[in-house]
Amino acid sequence: MTATAAPDLDRTVDDVARRAADAFDELSRTAPAVRAEGLRAAAAALADHADELVAIAQEETGLAEARLRGELKRTGVQLRLFANVVADGAYLDVRLDEADPDFVLGPRPDLRRSLWPVGPVLNFAASNFPFAFSVAGGDTAAALAAGCPVIVKAHPGHPLLSERVAELVSAALTGAGLPEATLQLVTSQDAGIALVEHPAVRAAAFTGSQRVGQLLAARTAARPDPIPFFGELGSVNPVLVSPEALRERSGDLLAGYVASVSGSAGQLCTKPGFLLVPVGTEYDDVVVTAAAQVPEHRLLNPSIADGYERRVGQVLGVDGVRVVHDGGFRRDADGQAWVTPTFVAVPLDLLRSAGPVLLDEVFGPFSVIVEYPDGTDLGAAVAELFPGNLTLTLHLGSGETEGEWASLVARLGRHAGRILLGGWPTGVAVTPAMQHGGPWPATTTDGTSVGTAAIGRFLRGVAFQDAPQELLPPPLRDENPWDVPRTVAPRGESSLW
Amino acid sequence: MTATAAPDLDRTVDDVARRAADAFDELSRTAPAVRAEGLRAAAAALADHADELVAIAQEETGLAEARLRGELKRTGVQLRLFANVVADGAYLDVRLDEADPDFVLGPRPDLRRSLWPVGPVLNFAASNFPFAFSVAGGDTAAALAAGCPVIVKAHPGHPLLSERVAELVSAALTGAGLPEATLQLVTSQDAGIALVEHPAVRAAAFTGSQRVGQLLAARTAARPDPIPFFGELGSVNPVLVSPEALRERSGDLLAGYVASVSGSAGQLCTKPGFLLVPVGTEYDDVVVTAAAQVPEHRLLNPSIADGYERRVGQVLGVDGVRVVHDGGFRRDADGQAWVTPTFVAVPLDLLRSAGPVLLDEVFGPFSVIVEYPDGTDLGAAVAELFPGNLTLTLHLGSGETEGEWASLVARLGRHAGRILLGGWPTGVAVTPAMQHGGPWPATTTDGTSVGTAAIGRFLRGVAFQDAPQELLPPPLRDENPWDVPRTVAPRGESSLW
Repeated sequence: MTATAAPDLDRTVDDVARRAADAFDELSRTAPAVRAEGLRAAAAALADHADELVAIAQEETGLAEARLRGELKRTGVQLRLFANVVADGAYLDVRLDEADPDFVLGPRPDLRRSLWPVGPVLNFAASNFPFAFSVAGGDTAAALAAGCPVIVKAHPGHPLLSERVAELVSAALTGAGLPEATLQLVTSQDAGIALVEHPAVRAAAFTGSQRVGQLLAARTAARPDPIPFFGELGSVNPVLVSPEALRERSGDLLAGYVASVSGSAGQLCTKPGFLLVPVGTEYDDVVVTAAAQVPEHRLLNPSIADGYERRVGQVLGVDGVRVVHDGGFRRDADGQAWVTPTFVAVPLDLLRSAGPVLLDEVFGPFSVIVEYPDGTDLGAAVAELFPGNLTLTLHLGSGETEGEWASLVARLGRHAGRILLGGWPTGVAVTPAMQHGGPWPATTTDGTSVGTAAIGRFLRGVAFQDAPQELLPPPLRDENPWDVPRTVAPRGESSLW
Repeated sequence: MTATAAPDLDRTVDDVARRAADAFDELSRTAPAVRAEGLRAAAAALADHADELVAIAQEETGLAEARLRGELKRTGVQLRLFANVVADGAYLDVRLDEADPDFVLGPRPDLRRSLWPVGPVLNFAASNFPFAFSVAGGDTAAALAAGCPVIVKAHPGHPLLSERVAELVSAALTGAGLPEATLQLVTSQDAGIALVEHPAVRAAAFTGSQRVGQLLAARTAARPDPIPFFGELGSVNPVLVSPEALRERSGDLLAGYVASVSGSAGQLCTKPGFLLVPVGTEYDDVVVTAAAQVPEHRLLNPSIADGYERRVGQVLGVDGVRVVHDGGFRRDADGQAWVTPTFVAVPLDLLRSAGPVLLDEVFGPFSVIVEYPDGTDLGAAVAELFPGNLTLTLHLGSGETEGEWASLVARLGRHAGRILLGGWPTGVAVTPAMQHGGPWPATTTDGTSVGTAAIGRFLRGVAFQDAPQELLPPPLRDENPWDVPRTVAPRGESSLW
């Protein structure tokens, strides 16, 4: 089913894949200015229909209007940011080796390398960001910027919104001169799985559960020609608090924590799942007071509600888990689940002995306060209990910037893609320096799915050797018609090595 | 078994892995100047022992002295080239977002991102380049440059050379101030396979057969925490010749072809496995004359000899395959196999109907001349028959630089990492713009294993948010003590989007 045509359930997966491959022929040859214009047109189309889109999204996801308006704006900014990346051309990583008859290893040919789009990309949309990680979200923007046609597998949590966004964006892209099947949408799970195995699909991106992600990763790996699979699968985002930080600002810290856990009903990949505080910290009053003020929030969909109910039940069933604030869980007449945040507390040792039942992610407004004894090696605790995260946050006292703290920060860098010194992980800036990806199970590879570096996942290197000017792609020609930045290895340089 | 200690068969895999993890602690914090000095010291140690090393290599591999001296020099240049990459620091891809209270999506934090070493790397050495793709070869140099300790699984084809190189390089690295277990060697296949699954190993690199590569790839994918696997598995490197090119220079072309197939007894990953010429081309005389002048050459080892004999036998057994020159195959009293090159010819259609028996790589001095009919769409033929290669070479006539030829070149770029316009693929320059990697089965990922871009395979992004200066890694500090190039996203820029 394509975005621009009326639904046609008979259209085969093969047809969608073939259309994507045909689009790639043309799209991979478009000038950057044309692709950038397409991305900007897509952003404008979303902004022009903000009221309509936000209304559909509210109905389908239960997320608050202000949050959805912010997310839609972010989605447009993301598309425009990638337009800038395309226009700039640094992402092509152009390298030119001048031919060198005196090269230290014998005559060196003229070599010119740049990055090329990998081909059609299959993008599995997420449920929790119906704009920013869905049809026109980060993975789509990055792949289109790279020059790859995108087939989006819509998330069943917001089907009407997915259709409408695909329709608007597809029209905007073709209106800007990009090929017709640059963006296509499929809705059935069977189609998504079949496409993972289709020869025309050259990479897949996914944001969702570890279980489904592992299943899809296994299928891409088992293809006769394995393709890269970029999965963002889950993260518990521990927040570590030093004794001194607590002494300085425990009230603000604990209130900030509750707010970060509660926003969007905790249905965020960077929600802090664990807060590590020194044994003896008094947190009950602030947490309970703050949590009691959080308004009830609908969970995204019945599947997420079921998972939340099950996981919370598992954690509460572990001996030694103390409930600090029970946020409850109720279903309305429509079968939707409504919650406020729940907080529990455990001693550090219990995490070690209980294992996955406590350590695995609980997706929703739930978090665990962990009391660590004096003298705990926090770096070792993270390595043992939380080895792979999108984020790790460390709250230190104002004087704690040296020695063991510096060494701790360096060790934390091995276990997350983003290290925050203060603040909360639940805002993810869309910028050149963002890293949204980390060691397994946070992501399946070391790429990022937010920020401009995300384009790198959909590119591959191709070098031309001794090609005449006329046969080179534009960014590799002497005249550099696209005016992209290039690094030159000059003739004669090897004498300096 | 480590390189610096006497062989100790009882030392466990776990011990080797633990030592690598310990070394990583220290190595990941070394200043670039120290790591660069280590790489240069390793290069110097190899050069200082050239006579000894080449003699061992000749005995163990049967490769010619001149070839081995060239390869050793190349290996040293490769190490020095990566020393320059480390010292330069551009590979860190440092990105700084200035904090921006007026950012279009709300206040933006201070974000600073660079690339970090992934951790200990397991490197399976190849048989056919006992220096350049072995213990101190490209994968090792790239991983060390990135700041990753390396565990090399030695290739059984040159065990003494592997030990000696590891000993020399390890001593040079530690002499330059790098940690003791920066480079370790294991020799047993069981150890190699166990290490692929060891939690401390964070990436694996492999150069070898498709069969073994697929086995190792499956094991890395099946880990509880999958790790990246960079395999270079096989390539047939088709060479396409236009009718006009043949009319202009058929003698030189055919002689060059025979030479490219014959060098190092064809035991090169970029050996041209197929030469596509127009039906009616007269090639027999030149090919037979040139092939008859190639001296007999020993194959690397009995395993490669067995594979060569088997594959050649399979191809010769296909109806319709015509032998142009039979290079023979004999075993000496020591069980070593000796060969000169064999050439066969087939019509293009036979490739289609025979399938893998003709299309799969024959590792050794064997190549297939393919006669294509007038009007053949060469781009379509490559897509169908040779979809994934390290290289594709196109020989055109002097006037053939436009229209269909330009479009053919663009299509070839999808099926190989390096496109040559003229020349032969069997020289692989070690430079910034080299790409040695291509679509499956050439490599398992889209990285390169030759050239400076190879370092990217062993790096991952880490961003710091709102960190005080003292807690930032050196390349992210305002003062930029390592003087690395950085890209800054300035405050206020989003108003321009």
